[in-house]
Amino acid sequence: MFMVERMVEPIFKRLVIIGIGLIGSSITRGARAYGGIADKIVICDTSPAALARAEELGLGDEYTSDPAKAVAGADGVILCAPVGTYAALAQAIAPHLAPGCVLSDVGSTKQSVMQDITPFVPANVAFVPAHPIAGTEFSGPDAGLADLFRGRWSLLTPPAGTAEAAIVKIETMWKILGAQTARMDAAHHDRVIAIVSHLPHLIAFTICGTADDLAGETRGEVLQFAASGFRDFTRIAASDPVMWRDIFLNNKDALLEMFARFSEDAQAMARAVRKGDADYIEDKINRSRKIRKSLIDIKQA
Amino acid sequence: MFMVERMVEPIFKRLVIIGIGLIGSSITRGARAYGGIADKIVICDTSPAALARAEELGLGDEYTSDPAKAVAGADGVILCAPVGTYAALAQAIAPHLAPGCVLSDVGSTKQSVMQDITPFVPANVAFVPAHPIAGTEFSGPDAGLADLFRGRWSLLTPPAGTAEAAIVKIETMWKILGAQTARMDAAHHDRVIAIVSHLPHLIAFTICGTADDLAGETRGEVLQFAASGFRDFTRIAASDPVMWRDIFLNNKDALLEMFARFSEDAQAMARAVRKGDADYIEDKINRSRKIRKSLIDIKQA
Ligand SMILES: NC(=O)c1ccc[n+]([C@@H]2O[C@H](COP(=O)([O-])OP(=O)(O)OC[C@H]3O[C@@H](n4cnc5c(N)ncnc54)[C@H](OP(=O)(O)O)[C@@H]3O)[C@@H](O)[C@H]2O)c1
Ligand SMILES: NC(=O)c1ccc[n+]([C@@H]2O[C@H](COP(=O)([O-])OP(=O)(O)OC[C@H]3O[C@@H](n4cnc5c(N)ncnc54)[C@H](OP(=O)(O)O)[C@@H]3O)[C@@H](O)[C@H]2O)c1
Repeated sequence: MFMVERMVEPIFKRLVIIGIGLIGSSITRGARAYGGIADKIVICDTSPAALARAEELGLGDEYTSDPAKAVAGADGVILCAPVGTYAALAQAIAPHLAPGCVLSDVGSTKQSVMQDITPFVPANVAFVPAHPIAGTEFSGPDAGLADLFRGRWSLLTPPAGTAEAAIVKIETMWKILGAQTARMDAAHHDRVIAIVSHLPHLIAFTICGTADDLAGETRGEVLQFAASGFRDFTRIAASDPVMWRDIFLNNKDALLEMFARFSEDAQAMARAVRKGDADYIEDKINRSRKIRKSLIDIKQA
Repeated sequence: MFMVERMVEPIFKRLVIIGIGLIGSSITRGARAYGGIADKIVICDTSPAALARAEELGLGDEYTSDPAKAVAGADGVILCAPVGTYAALAQAIAPHLAPGCVLSDVGSTKQSVMQDITPFVPANVAFVPAHPIAGTEFSGPDAGLADLFRGRWSLLTPPAGTAEAAIVKIETMWKILGAQTARMDAAHHDRVIAIVSHLPHLIAFTICGTADDLAGETRGEVLQFAASGFRDFTRIAASDPVMWRDIFLNNKDALLEMFARFSEDAQAMARAVRKGDADYIEDKINRSRKIRKSLIDIKQA
């Protein structure tokens, strides 16, 4: 058994992580902890502070701020920066990607990422877009956790015609990191994620602002007496502003569609409160409870 | 030191808890754990199951489903049922309240509770409305925790002219249970709590329904890939339907005002997404982050 494991080649000889924040550093930590992912990990970040910190933490084997230099000779490259940077990054690295290299990403929006990256991908490079459904409200290289992806999903949205072997490499990587994988259409991905992640964040950011706009005395007390509902919302709202700005702008259509549906439903609930329609309110609350129960049943709670 | 503690009288000789759910059973558990609150605890609940379970758990000294019988001879009575039951309960117990008794409650809305109860309070009984800002998404006698209130606030909204000694008794009880207390105007309480608790719950209940309305395939995947934002919302939305229905109906005005403010802000955010106004979005997210930071600073996160 031991011999067999030693003899198995890791998925990548030279794996480049571009953007060493929460997600990038969780991948490198997991790669170290579980093995079998990469012989050598190259870390690239435009933030000198993040790069220095990654080196201090020993998250990789090489460190550079130059993406073109980082990807030279690599057989695996994963973009882990905010999605708004992907088009420029793809353009910068494309001429330097080695034949046979697998290019992937972890971006939270998939149609925009594919639109931004695909035009630059050389014919002899496979592009396998992925999105791990895992995270915390923290960011930066210190926030990473080797088991961040354990028990979670990573959703792959490979374009038609992508080499199967390349897809399997990325799937295997996520499985080693403890995630289950699923393949789906990018447009479908964006709608599902708009309601389970992007809309909740938009709402959480908004309600914090609404509270902050209240007149002086009330505002101080909002903080002082923050109840559990609001506290949970502020935690969601503590996430990285640049990352979320990029997500909203890059999943605009699906996000706005889900927002419109939510707004209608919220107006209907407000109307029921105004009219004192006890049955409607109780019914809606009972329904939400059932959804929570389903989540607990499938262990995603 | 030991002698002094033994010599101090508990606040109440006979304390009646009406409604032995999450909050009621947390008070009785805390009273047992910390001492100094009551010589004898009488538990009253209309649910035979809750009452039987409370007796099994040994949460009190006497158990009855008859509120009139429960309060006879009591010097402390705390209503811990959903706020929609308070008017009828007050009417039922009023003729049986002993002179000098302190009547209190834990209801999450305070103007409605005062309107519902005050007309029935005999002249020789003090009414001290209170609202502990603490809870979980669970309910029933098994959900209670002796330290549920530790480090939290209990807000008192005594009407003008309430005997100071009665207010101090209720404040002392909450302090023994580990909470800080503050006195405030009931209308002000209702506005603050509308934004920190009632509106977040309305939103959480709503978004679960919005997700559940999605067409077949997407809906299954919403559950399967539930990301952290949505998971947190479903947890908030798992709370007791009757309790929350009553809260919404009894804090209608403040809740609808805060909902209107939130709706406007959410529409503005959606407009910024539609127009691609990156600065606006980033600015709003940065502001929410600051609120989270303030909460952490004052240890209410
Ligand atoms: N956080 C989550 O919950 C989550 C979950 C799933 C997927 N994702 C996706 O994962 C990606 C990264 O998120 P994260 O939470 O790990 O973010 P993060 O902690 O903020 O880290 C991102 C890192 O990328 C760096 N960076 C920015 N532009 C760059 C560029 N052009 N080239 C190289 N590095 C660059 C950032 O540096 P600066 O600090 O200087 O900008 C930062 O160090 C995003 O695309 C996001 O959509 C996030
Ligand atoms: N949960 C929170 O987060 C929280 C926080 C602060 C304040 N509060 C307030 O605390 C109160 C209780 O909430 P909870 O979470 O403890 O609720 P809970 O766990 O649902 O318990 C309420 C109990 O009261 C019983 N009850 C209902 N009507 C009654 C009546 N007329 N007479 C006697 N008992 C009756 C219920 O029986 P049935 O099951 O048969 O209805 C149940 O056993 C509410 O007013 C709420 O606004 C709640």
